[in-house]
Amino acid sequence: MLKDQNRPVFAIIGSGWGGSTLARLLDTAKYDVVVLSPDMTFSYTPLLASAACGLFDFSLAAESIRQPGSRVRFVRATVHDIDFASKQLNCTAQDEINSEIKFLFSFDQLVITPGTTVNTFGTPGVHEHAMVMRNAHDALKFRLRLFDQLERASLPCIDDETRNGLLHVIVVGGGPTGLELVAELSDMIRCQLNKIFPHLYENISISVHDVAGSILTSFDEKLAEYGTAKLRARNIEIHTSSHIEKIEAGAIVTKELGRVNAGVVVWATGNKAIPLIEDLKARKTEKGLPRILTTDRLQVTRDDEERTIIEGVYALGDAADVDGATLPTTAEVATQKATYLASMLNGKIAEPEAWSPFQYKQRALVTYLGNHDGVIGGREDWTGASAWLAWRSGTLMWTWSWSRRVKILFTWTMDRLVGRDIVQN
Amino acid sequence: MLKDQNRPVFAIIGSGWGGSTLARLLDTAKYDVVVLSPDMTFSYTPLLASAACGLFDFSLAAESIRQPGSRVRFVRATVHDIDFASKQLNCTAQDEINSEIKFLFSFDQLVITPGTTVNTFGTPGVHEHAMVMRNAHDALKFRLRLFDQLERASLPCIDDETRNGLLHVIVVGGGPTGLELVAELSDMIRCQLNKIFPHLYENISISVHDVAGSILTSFDEKLAEYGTAKLRARNIEIHTSSHIEKIEAGAIVTKELGRVNAGVVVWATGNKAIPLIEDLKARKTEKGLPRILTTDRLQVTRDDEERTIIEGVYALGDAADVDGATLPTTAEVATQKATYLASMLNGKIAEPEAWSPFQYKQRALVTYLGNHDGVIGGREDWTGASAWLAWRSGTLMWTWSWSRRVKILFTWTMDRLVGRDIVQN
Repeated sequence: MLKDQNRPVFAIIGSGWGGSTLARLLDTAKYDVVVLSPDMTFSYTPLLASAACGLFDFSLAAESIRQPGSRVRFVRATVHDIDFASKQLNCTAQDEINSEIKFLFSFDQLVITPGTTVNTFGTPGVHEHAMVMRNAHDALKFRLRLFDQLERASLPCIDDETRNGLLHVIVVGGGPTGLELVAELSDMIRCQLNKIFPHLYENISISVHDVAGSILTSFDEKLAEYGTAKLRARNIEIHTSSHIEKIEAGAIVTKELGRVNAGVVVWATGNKAIPLIEDLKARKTEKGLPRILTTDRLQVTRDDEERTIIEGVYALGDAADVDGATLPTTAEVATQKATYLASMLNGKIAEPEAWSPFQYKQRALVTYLGNHDGVIGGREDWTGASAWLAWRSGTLMWTWSWSRRVKILFTWTMDRLVGRDIVQN
Repeated sequence: MLKDQNRPVFAIIGSGWGGSTLARLLDTAKYDVVVLSPDMTFSYTPLLASAACGLFDFSLAAESIRQPGSRVRFVRATVHDIDFASKQLNCTAQDEINSEIKFLFSFDQLVITPGTTVNTFGTPGVHEHAMVMRNAHDALKFRLRLFDQLERASLPCIDDETRNGLLHVIVVGGGPTGLELVAELSDMIRCQLNKIFPHLYENISISVHDVAGSILTSFDEKLAEYGTAKLRARNIEIHTSSHIEKIEAGAIVTKELGRVNAGVVVWATGNKAIPLIEDLKARKTEKGLPRILTTDRLQVTRDDEERTIIEGVYALGDAADVDGATLPTTAEVATQKATYLASMLNGKIAEPEAWSPFQYKQRALVTYLGNHDGVIGGREDWTGASAWLAWRSGTLMWTWSWSRRVKILFTWTMDRLVGRDIVQN
């Protein structure tokens, strides 16, 4: 772990799509690459809904930052503050059993890509009583929670009203994250849970709540309507223009409906900046989610009138945007930026001023709707079974290693041959 | 969940080897079979050490009690008391989020097979600071704890002495459970961790402590010596005649060595009776672990002088023994008893008095020693690579479903082809 005198320390804050892609692509002969993140795994976010619904071992939805034989270093810690002048990071490490520990970490070059955190919009009870779906651990927790409720509802002493409450899953947020979970969950209920819990089939229900007037707002109106109709046809209650006042143990309270019993509540709506980004002395976006506003070479600039560049410091992922571009907070953007930056940094041109600027290439937006159906938007609109197939193969291509792809394909094949093996623990 | 008037309610307390085998084999056309257990999965105990060391998805080491299409009912609850007169069970259900709930459960016939619990022998700190290895969740917890320690030890601010303490794994108990974990762990360190954490390879150490004068006491002396020598040759410290005084956060204290730093402590020594069995008004063994003493038809008898039989009540597994037999507390005995009882109960002879009595068939004892080596005792003694192969195929045959066997074989094949994929979350 000693500093290599020949290579500059290249620190990457964050292990999401941006940080992990960059760490994988940066030339470790040229840089001493160090990833700093509280998460020791990188989650394949498009696979989380499947993992949550037991399609396969949840660990296939995550990849370790530490890869056998890799020269990338990893420090499991949260970065609280960056001192650009002394080139030091202020870090805290914390885990389940060891006590909290604080330390400084020196860097030569830096990429800031820590992502965002959950936005509760000030709603009381979200942290205490709702679940999120941001990494593989969340997927596992969702599965455990759901099976806890199914077991509780199976007890001989439970009355019907209590049973219906225990088995009501409420998803707050009608974007792709919430709806893919709803789609996978509805598939699982129809194809697997009806065989394992036949006595509860009539008692399970799913609702989606969104404060906006419609769901799937990132797609165009026609696709959003198609998706809404398809989900409603499968008995999924969709409440648009719904205002959540608070979340309690076993219920949500909305302005429109009052108290609604729920056994599982998933909060899948909106992100906000983490304190590191909020407090950072660098130029940021002025409206919406505060993001670092970089140059078109992804360089971070000082918060002064000249917008002077902080040398050797870059930002990407959800926590950053390119000046004048307003790019979405998607895995696609983070991956493209990381690939661009790695290629520039690995290249022979040392001066970012001489690099070709970053350009985002628009890719299709895909959302699974359950029952082998989906919507695809962006370059061309598309629905139905072929959209589902495109989504599935896309899912597979997101993963990096061939062994992982083979394992996922094997799981899907076994599902076909012998039925999906729901993992109940 | 309503009681079927045509079939008697056949309650099974426990979902271990005994309870799960019986539930799988009993004729559900003849009996309304209900398993009551706090665990909704059955753990393949011979696979736990592999699962703990990341050989495969830990969920492959567990099987759900609820199987698709099965007519067996399941109630996730702990049974605290049995009223033989009114034929009622006193139950408590408890899970992560729902409040505790108490209820009564009526039965017509009953099998008591709840197993045992961890025996701390009054050692302070075991429950707070040591881990156990009894089910698939324990295996997962061990893996998470180990990786927490590896990440903490990788922090740049950690000194060498602290690092060695964090990475010292101590197993208390030199029986098959403890030693198979040690063997798998030593394989994992040598074959995988050295690639993922090369900077820590020299700092990881393993010790075994046992209060007895030797380890592997269930095998004969020659095999035990062979096993001890093999483990020592791989730098595993073996402390026999070691008296653990207490376990603290980050250390154990022994009479012989004083305070010894440890990052992970696994308590794998001895079982004791659960309160249900301790308090049960039935005839029990007089020496050692209190077990229900059944007839050779596995019937439970009253604690009176006549040893009158309690009709329709049977006991098996670790919590029971056959009068005059003194059988070991192994999965093999539990499985053979469950198979016998199912065959008798499914048969045409209603009166247990007319059944042929249960007879235990001695099977080989197998323990893995790591590095493709093992010891086999019992009918014939055996060591080396062929013992390892026998252990592996035996492991596979313990599992019940073909799809699970295919999945485990697939995992082993992938390990061969692309290297073992350690699951780090």
